Amino acid sequence: MEKDLIVYLESFLTERRRALFRRVLDQRTRYLTVVLEDLYQPHNASAVLRSCECFGIQDVHIIENRNKYTVNPDIALGSSKWLNLIKYNNREDNTTAAIRSLKEQGYRIVATVPGEDATPLEAFDLAAGKAALLFGTELTGLTGTAVSLADEKLVIPMYGFTESFNISVSAGIILSHLVFRLHKTTGWQLSPEEKEAIYLEWLKNSIKSSEQIIRKWEEKG
Amino acid sequence: MEKDLIVYLESFLTERRRALFRRVLDQRTRYLTVVLEDLYQPHNASAVLRSCECFGIQDVHIIENRNKYTVNPDIALGSSKWLNLIKYNNREDNTTAAIRSLKEQGYRIVATVPGEDATPLEAFDLAAGKAALLFGTELTGLTGTAVSLADEKLVIPMYGFTESFNISVSAGIILSHLVFRLHKTTGWQLSPEEKEAIYLEWLKNSIKSSEQIIRKWEEKG
Repeated sequence: MEKDLIVYLESFLTERRRALFRRVLDQRTRYLTVVLEDLYQPHNASAVLRSCECFGIQDVHIIENRNKYTVNPDIALGSSKWLNLIKYNNREDNTTAAIRSLKEQGYRIVATVPGEDATPLEAFDLAAGKAALLFGTELTGLTGTAVSLADEKLVIPMYGFTESFNISVSAGIILSHLVFRLHKTTGWQLSPEEKEAIYLEWLKNSIKSSEQIIRKWEEKG
Repeated sequence: MEKDLIVYLESFLTERRRALFRRVLDQRTRYLTVVLEDLYQPHNASAVLRSCECFGIQDVHIIENRNKYTVNPDIALGSSKWLNLIKYNNREDNTTAAIRSLKEQGYRIVATVPGEDATPLEAFDLAAGKAALLFGTELTGLTGTAVSLADEKLVIPMYGFTESFNISVSAGIILSHLVFRLHKTTGWQLSPEEKEAIYLEWLKNSIKSSEQIIRKWEEKG
């Protein structure tokens, strides 16, 4: 049924566009995922989404404790359309809920923090298993809750007076190093089933009036 | 004379602070330099300065053709105080002036651009000589002038639909990869004379009422 729908919807796309979709899908991963805790500057949130999309990170987890996550379309450039955004915003403590859920999915929780007890980016053991990378809010960083629930800490080496990077820069740097390394390994790509589900979403999101088209298709049976 | 002044000004700093200054100076470089062409979003300009400071890039060249460069203090976190900012803003075509000046100083000019004819970041030949990394304005990127005057092109590999990174993210990613590699080589550090000149500037910038102190010191002879 779902396969048939995909074939049907595909017919609305040019061959070139379909090939692009498949090429991008082949580069998607859930081996790494990004968790944003309470970002409040839309330009940062948007820049992080854009970096995730560029680097093939499919899932972005968004914790909204005090700050509602908003995207600046000029900076995100439509990137959220191609990502799975998972929001945590209906509890008192959404940080714990998010981390618990990710642990249940087999992720090790990696807090990105400054400090000497954290692993420098280049020494990070990528082979040790799926990793959820936690990034904290602009001025104060990750909450104590997030840091205390994390399995590991990760830091970008710095050599100046300034003791942290802008949050979206930090995420971009870490993702670039880990994704380039990931691509030299195996087993990081999505399963055929995961690819199919995402492909269907992308088709729905990029075909005009796809809802009507699908309704008609379902009526025909 | 200058050395004596340094010794005098140093006496206003704690030993710990002096050690920090020297440690940071040892990590400074002019082997890589950053050139920003017409950035207009203060949060981007500020985030780039902050990344340069964190990674030990001492000089940042700022081309202002149409847009005046302004810094957002919440994002820059005082980083410009520790950098040498060289501005090009008094001509019709400041891009050509900046690039010509950098070429005269022995820099190869590296345009950071998307596109298949550019060298992927990991393949960039760092050993080929000092490099000035050019970053363009937010929406349209580097001007044709900048690209045509460049000796090389550099690109960050991307795997998604979105075809570029946010500019400050892009600069952070490129600097991180090149600086980590640079630190594994030799000959990238400042000369003793360069260090001394910068050290004096830092002393002046970080001691309260340093102008008065210096005036008094000069009067005493």
